[in-house]
Amino acid sequence: MPASIPASGPTPAASRFTVELLAVGDELLYGDIVNNNAAWLGRQLAEIGVRVPTSVVVGDDTSAIAGAVKAALDRADAVVLTGGLGPTQDDLTREGLAAAAGVALRRDEFLADQLRRRFRALRRDVPERNYGQADLPEGAQPLPNDRGTAPGVRLEIRSGVAYALPGVPHEMEEMFRASVLPDLLRRAGEPAIVVHRVIRTAGMWESAVAEAMAPEVERLAREGGNPTVAFLASGGQTRLRISAHAASRGDAARLIAPVEEFARGALGSAVYGFDDDSLEGVVVTQLTRAGATVAVGESLTGGLLAARLTDVPGSSEAFRGGVVAYSSDAKERLLGVPRDGLAQFGAVSAESAADMAVGARESLGATYGLSLTGVAGPDEQEGKPVGTVFAGLSAPEGVTTRALRLPGDRPRVRTYAVVAALDLLRRYLAPG
Amino acid sequence: MPASIPASGPTPAASRFTVELLAVGDELLYGDIVNNNAAWLGRQLAEIGVRVPTSVVVGDDTSAIAGAVKAALDRADAVVLTGGLGPTQDDLTREGLAAAAGVALRRDEFLADQLRRRFRALRRDVPERNYGQADLPEGAQPLPNDRGTAPGVRLEIRSGVAYALPGVPHEMEEMFRASVLPDLLRRAGEPAIVVHRVIRTAGMWESAVAEAMAPEVERLAREGGNPTVAFLASGGQTRLRISAHAASRGDAARLIAPVEEFARGALGSAVYGFDDDSLEGVVVTQLTRAGATVAVGESLTGGLLAARLTDVPGSSEAFRGGVVAYSSDAKERLLGVPRDGLAQFGAVSAESAADMAVGARESLGATYGLSLTGVAGPDEQEGKPVGTVFAGLSAPEGVTTRALRLPGDRPRVRTYAVVAALDLLRRYLAPG
Repeated sequence: MPASIPASGPTPAASRFTVELLAVGDELLYGDIVNNNAAWLGRQLAEIGVRVPTSVVVGDDTSAIAGAVKAALDRADAVVLTGGLGPTQDDLTREGLAAAAGVALRRDEFLADQLRRRFRALRRDVPERNYGQADLPEGAQPLPNDRGTAPGVRLEIRSGVAYALPGVPHEMEEMFRASVLPDLLRRAGEPAIVVHRVIRTAGMWESAVAEAMAPEVERLAREGGNPTVAFLASGGQTRLRISAHAASRGDAARLIAPVEEFARGALGSAVYGFDDDSLEGVVVTQLTRAGATVAVGESLTGGLLAARLTDVPGSSEAFRGGVVAYSSDAKERLLGVPRDGLAQFGAVSAESAADMAVGARESLGATYGLSLTGVAGPDEQEGKPVGTVFAGLSAPEGVTTRALRLPGDRPRVRTYAVVAALDLLRRYLAPG
Repeated sequence: MPASIPASGPTPAASRFTVELLAVGDELLYGDIVNNNAAWLGRQLAEIGVRVPTSVVVGDDTSAIAGAVKAALDRADAVVLTGGLGPTQDDLTREGLAAAAGVALRRDEFLADQLRRRFRALRRDVPERNYGQADLPEGAQPLPNDRGTAPGVRLEIRSGVAYALPGVPHEMEEMFRASVLPDLLRRAGEPAIVVHRVIRTAGMWESAVAEAMAPEVERLAREGGNPTVAFLASGGQTRLRISAHAASRGDAARLIAPVEEFARGALGSAVYGFDDDSLEGVVVTQLTRAGATVAVGESLTGGLLAARLTDVPGSSEAFRGGVVAYSSDAKERLLGVPRDGLAQFGAVSAESAADMAVGARESLGATYGLSLTGVAGPDEQEGKPVGTVFAGLSAPEGVTTRALRLPGDRPRVRTYAVVAALDLLRRYLAPG
């Protein structure tokens, strides 16, 4: 990839050592389950600066597995397989590995004995088909499985190596950490450390964030692309990830610092947090620090704003409660929104948002009242198009409202509206 | 695979036509996001009996994309790409397709004009880099994107065809249904039909559902494993999927009917719906049919119950509104829960759940009041362990409460609690 391009994970210079991922199972191909194992393994490998050029899924088919293993080892130094080690007849990873290496399967009596002991502990006999888990390709080493019955397999094929791990996530993760990672690090030599710094923004579109960062991204490109910058947009927010590779954490930090400084300057108040911060978490912290509380009144988001704030453990100190006023009647009864106002301006209006914010604040005795009203769709309302949203903030100093025009369908409009309301309060509470 | 094991996807008999999936993005390789698109596409292709031998992920690299497209079309009749169509410099799918076909990229003025109009509607100018989304490989056809700015791409390469879809799920799904599926069906000819029937249950654990279905699953196994039965548990609900392959829809329906009948008998009132039904959708329909309304009062779920009901388009007829009473004070002020009750029994109690349900019903003038109180964690509360939950239902005939002990962490406890409350109302409103 051209160095000016946002990169995820390690940069090419980080390490020459490459690992390919190969997940086995029809249930993955046909979407009965999602390939979370590949995502987890990718994160682990990125951490140690190992490159993952490709990730593949094949079905429960011996020749497909064998072919994919051979292709992977033509391209990469190692391949990590997940799945297909169970006791049933559609668990064919051992057979696929043996075929890829051109060797036979042999019963490992030590593993067979382990199986007997494990089942005896459960006061059960070993079902005949489970003995297949004691078969290994000739020349392979078993990888202990402390969390299940299926041992893993390590097999050197020509100059490469294949590791086969169970598909069950907690078994796979333990086996990867205990048996695969150390072996990979030994084979890879000392990889460069890769340090990531995530800068989180709200209230700014991805394209605008990219525009603002363009000069710095281009500077980094000219100077060799270390660190790299990635833009990750989701749920109405944009994350910026700065990834530096270096010999030490200190060196990485020195590479990241100027890019972070540029980003803080270029993105200004859109920056709400770093690394694992969440927008709702930041708002709850702001409120708690100030000894303040918030109450919410929402219509189109139907409870999502309150749910988001209460996602934060310990939010009960800062969150007084909320009202989901889906009907004008509810707006009147619980938020004291005057009927004439609703009649004059409509439920979807800045005036209504202001009244709802004031009502939430007063009816729940909170320091701040936060409100959302608008059109989530699928149909327009009061002649206002889908995506028309008004957010209101009632503070001791007075009331603020913000008019928004949000893209997308019903779920997206609702999500973006929640982010906009949280961001309205976040910016109001921000120092300076 | 033994027939007694839930089978995934089409059976070998289904079709010779094969489609390979190719997801593009470093963020997938390094686990910033999970490849949910491949799972969704796999399900769609299984539906129509198309085989998916392989699913691949490559990074943001033109030659890697080009190589993967060529390899895919060596193995399969078609390749469906997802991701890499965005406006940023690391969106290289268009370039990769052009390289795979050995053609150049050309600016499509019609697409450029569409971009201008779409941005004008959002009252924004087109950022310069977004114009890249109007470039197409020579000989390619654009696929309309009704939900975003990035058009898809259809490109015939030799005897195969490549479809490039956006990575944003709701854009990708719409484009697949509207533009890719019809074209695939045309090219595949009439594949053997695979018909799925999904039976949805609530209030019954997966193991209990599997237990109840065991005799029928064993019968199917003995008789050749068509249809097959799969159990899919998620979000506190269990789905049962019956999959039959046959020459016609009628034949498939005849295969499915007796299995569905067995399931209805074995699972009884736990069955709330079929296929694409949702629990909240069923409840809203029950209420609307009865000309009744519901109001909610919730604490530990902090708005999720209301949000779930308002997920349903058109729920405003049946949903009066809700109160998120996170503080005892809010329970008193907005739900009129008597302070002495809270003091005597605690906020986490059947009594409190009953008071909240009554309060929600009365304060919002609804036919039914539904409530949730409990301990979501991370810490215990009032000496009650995490997962202790009480649901309350206030009806014209009186008040019902249900005590629950839910497993898992904070998000799971909150999700399961919402399902339990919806199911309480659903069973109350169910005929008979």
